[in-house]
Amino acid sequence: MALVVTELTMSLDGYIAYESGHVGPLFDWYGNGDVEVVSGDGKRTFHMSEVSAEHVRRGDKETGAYVIGRKLFDFTQGWGGVSPSGPHVPVFVVTHSQPDGWPRPEANFTIVLDGIESAIAQAREAAGEKVVGVAGPNLVQQCLNLGLLDEVRIDLVPVILGGGIPFFANLKDVPVILDGPTLTEGTGVTHLRYTVDSTRRRSPKRTP
Amino acid sequence: MALVVTELTMSLDGYIAYESGHVGPLFDWYGNGDVEVVSGDGKRTFHMSEVSAEHVRRGDKETGAYVIGRKLFDFTQGWGGVSPSGPHVPVFVVTHSQPDGWPRPEANFTIVLDGIESAIAQAREAAGEKVVGVAGPNLVQQCLNLGLLDEVRIDLVPVILGGGIPFFANLKDVPVILDGPTLTEGTGVTHLRYTVDSTRRRSPKRTP
Repeated sequence: MALVVTELTMSLDGYIAYESGHVGPLFDWYGNGDVEVVSGDGKRTFHMSEVSAEHVRRGDKETGAYVIGRKLFDFTQGWGGVSPSGPHVPVFVVTHSQPDGWPRPEANFTIVLDGIESAIAQAREAAGEKVVGVAGPNLVQQCLNLGLLDEVRIDLVPVILGGGIPFFANLKDVPVILDGPTLTEGTGVTHLRYTVDSTRRRSPKRTP
Repeated sequence: MALVVTELTMSLDGYIAYESGHVGPLFDWYGNGDVEVVSGDGKRTFHMSEVSAEHVRRGDKETGAYVIGRKLFDFTQGWGGVSPSGPHVPVFVVTHSQPDGWPRPEANFTIVLDGIESAIAQAREAAGEKVVGVAGPNLVQQCLNLGLLDEVRIDLVPVILGGGIPFFANLKDVPVILDGPTLTEGTGVTHLRYTVDSTRRRSPKRTP
């Protein structure tokens, strides 16, 4: 059954963006190399190190569904109706109220009104053997609290932001203990993958 | 001239201890292996992974002086009059007022009343070709603000603490951009070394 993972770029002081939502220097690693990577939705072209390109392509390839919260949905205007990994990857939007103009017939998006656990279950079903990507810090925090998250992936950048939106906040039952990391080092970014301790999560383990 | 460095164990959400000063699971990596390391002051024996043992021994060996703030000095009761790297390594204590009972004739400690820059200069002089270790988050923050810090070393542990004392806070001129890291991976800890961007610091570069 699909693993539930999250991945965000984070500063050394634990922030994923300024309060405004803008990322400042956090995403510099998407543009500091010479290996071209086109995003799965075809909308953006990046130039990054070979190691990071490998990392990003692998992530895109293995993602079978996304679950996002309403805040990120609104901030990105519903990702323009296409998931970052392409139109074939379904997106499940957790929200309390139907957004205006949605659902759209051409968009592979499902508006989920009956809660995060329902959204994760639907996304898992859709992802099959692939992984479910959870996006947005609020949603990640809720998933951690509910034991729904299997992996935390951090793209750690050598920047002290000084303030902003924390990756981790409002957690119950802290400290949260993780296993790992497995890591690869890009240019200006360290890609870290942690597994949520099995006592903390309700998801089944990945079958080897 | 001596490089000025700081090293602290930090959680994924950027904390170096609980508000109380206690470290909870942050220091587990000092005890999760079978390689014995005796602290430089001879007071504590740890059992850690080979990689971490190597890292700790290297750090101890290369430290030629410490600068610490009054808060850490009080919390640790002046490290019992001995630096963590041993009695031969001098300690410079930055404070606004002479602590009761200090200086002590047997302790290689200097109470510095005329400010952090003076303390760093004295420590550099004492350290010679070795490095100056700055301990305590408040002091680290001030050093970063004053351009006095050359390296930031983070022992990153796979724990989300949920709150506590942040490594980085109260910084001016954010974002702070660092170079690196060079890293080694221990068990339950990733040892990361970052260089403070040269435009930010006033210290001379290490001569190779």
